[in-house]
Amino acid sequence: MKVLIIGAAGMVGNKLARNLAASGTLAGTKLAALTLADAVMPQAPADATVPVSVVRIDISQRPEVDKLIATEPDVIFHLAAIVSGEAEQNFDKGYAINLDGTRYLLEAIRARGAHYVPKFIFTSSIAVFGPPFPDAIDDDFRLTPTTSYGTQKAIDELLLADFTRKGFVDGIGLRLPTICVRPGKPNLAASGFFSGIIREPLAGLPAVLPVSVDVRHWHASPRAALGFLLHAAGLPKGALGTRVNLTLPGLSVTVAEQLEALREVAGASALSLVRMEPDATIAKIVAGWPQNFIPARALALGFKAESSFAEIIQAHIEDEMRGAAR
Amino acid sequence: MKVLIIGAAGMVGNKLARNLAASGTLAGTKLAALTLADAVMPQAPADATVPVSVVRIDISQRPEVDKLIATEPDVIFHLAAIVSGEAEQNFDKGYAINLDGTRYLLEAIRARGAHYVPKFIFTSSIAVFGPPFPDAIDDDFRLTPTTSYGTQKAIDELLLADFTRKGFVDGIGLRLPTICVRPGKPNLAASGFFSGIIREPLAGLPAVLPVSVDVRHWHASPRAALGFLLHAAGLPKGALGTRVNLTLPGLSVTVAEQLEALREVAGASALSLVRMEPDATIAKIVAGWPQNFIPARALALGFKAESSFAEIIQAHIEDEMRGAAR
Repeated sequence: MKVLIIGAAGMVGNKLARNLAASGTLAGTKLAALTLADAVMPQAPADATVPVSVVRIDISQRPEVDKLIATEPDVIFHLAAIVSGEAEQNFDKGYAINLDGTRYLLEAIRARGAHYVPKFIFTSSIAVFGPPFPDAIDDDFRLTPTTSYGTQKAIDELLLADFTRKGFVDGIGLRLPTICVRPGKPNLAASGFFSGIIREPLAGLPAVLPVSVDVRHWHASPRAALGFLLHAAGLPKGALGTRVNLTLPGLSVTVAEQLEALREVAGASALSLVRMEPDATIAKIVAGWPQNFIPARALALGFKAESSFAEIIQAHIEDEMRGAAR
Repeated sequence: MKVLIIGAAGMVGNKLARNLAASGTLAGTKLAALTLADAVMPQAPADATVPVSVVRIDISQRPEVDKLIATEPDVIFHLAAIVSGEAEQNFDKGYAINLDGTRYLLEAIRARGAHYVPKFIFTSSIAVFGPPFPDAIDDDFRLTPTTSYGTQKAIDELLLADFTRKGFVDGIGLRLPTICVRPGKPNLAASGFFSGIIREPLAGLPAVLPVSVDVRHWHASPRAALGFLLHAAGLPKGALGTRVNLTLPGLSVTVAEQLEALREVAGASALSLVRMEPDATIAKIVAGWPQNFIPARALALGFKAESSFAEIIQAHIEDEMRGAAR
């Protein structure tokens, strides 16, 4: 089995690449080759048990996409995207990568001919939804995004469903929760604090909370995100029927519940490193985000996320801190 | 005020063109110029009270679209599309016209610069919806189309909303009901019989009914369709908030109710011209179509359709038969 990861230099893509390179299998099948592609040159994992090739690619260029798909990988993970903030600032770039790039991939697959129908696992986002929201968003909620990023992901979902219906690909779209705890340095994303208020205190560093502790949001760990991708690869063809885009499970918690879990896992000293510093701009952005879901279809299909925020913190400590918080 | 109609050679586009050319006004404002564009050369109405120009255009060619938009019309009606059956058979052509064509129009408008923000009235379709359906589809129903045509229209709606949100156009998307009674010759569209069983008997000709009289569907007359477009042009900017795509009012009736209205308007002799000839293929296609809606937003915005099928038949007799059925 040949596997291609597009967006392999990103946080989740890299995690998936390292997992597949180390295990040498996907959904019970041995890998023959693993290709890692991204806009920046991905790093081949050091301990790979399968042949790994790395490719730098601009998916907004159709000839580059055709060349990438010409190797006819059996499973394609498409995780590449311009993130929300950048897609909002740079309208053309967002559409070029997030819409044209995805469409070119689907078109390049179709252009290979009827013999080639790969599994195509696409990461969508809860940004496809827009307010007003009910208390919990079910699988039948309308797609009315309020950002260019959300619009592009919603369009990709529609394309994926139509190309799958026509038999050109075996597609599945996964609407990931906000990934928390996000490893690495603090960044300027409006959602960054959800991870920062956990990651920084665990490392003995101060963190700022810009919103009220009443704010509720929808989380899953990087470990759960990896699990979603591996599980999707193992689903039998047709398991999703005609509706191939799924809201994934996650954990709906308030910031207060996040902080209580931090205290539980790392003690009052960790909690004391979080400073409240309200930021009206961030509070306004966050107020437009969904808070809770009822992902009945994904649960029925066997997708699993964490059931407590303490679990999410534990996953971070085990996977990113070699098991030990400061 | 300069007005452009794209798709002006189609049934509804032609009706709109004739209305504007004759009245010389739109939403209370005098027209300075009317441009009619289509893939086949539109006919300029004979009794025009305003300067009319006609243009043949392939909207899937960006340079042609740029040239068309360079005149900076104040109001653009975009009705051009590859219809459902053809978009399903010719995948590339459907995407080229229905997706790329619409996107090129929006991009060409944006490319003119911030001084140019025209009103852009786009005709979408109830084909953006897919089963399973509730008894009546409300304004919050999900978009899960099951045809390429429906997919393309749903994508156009998302683009229209995003370009409007960003301030590039003042967009409104109108999901038209099935237009009935469609004038002209019978055609091979699966929905053709809804019009045929009325139009043909009124003209003293036989008609075939391929489905059960229990079949329920969502109708509006060509006259109502014209009214929708004129009403949309008169809505103040921002009237739709962030959700610029609307399901329009219509009339939900069964075939039995259609036939009863035919008998009421034209007598038992007209009714006797309808022959039942069940067709399993057509019955299956029609079973996947929505039957009823609750278009609360459009009603609140003042859009109006017929309230009885007899009214729809009367509109046909008045508008297409010079007032007299045979």
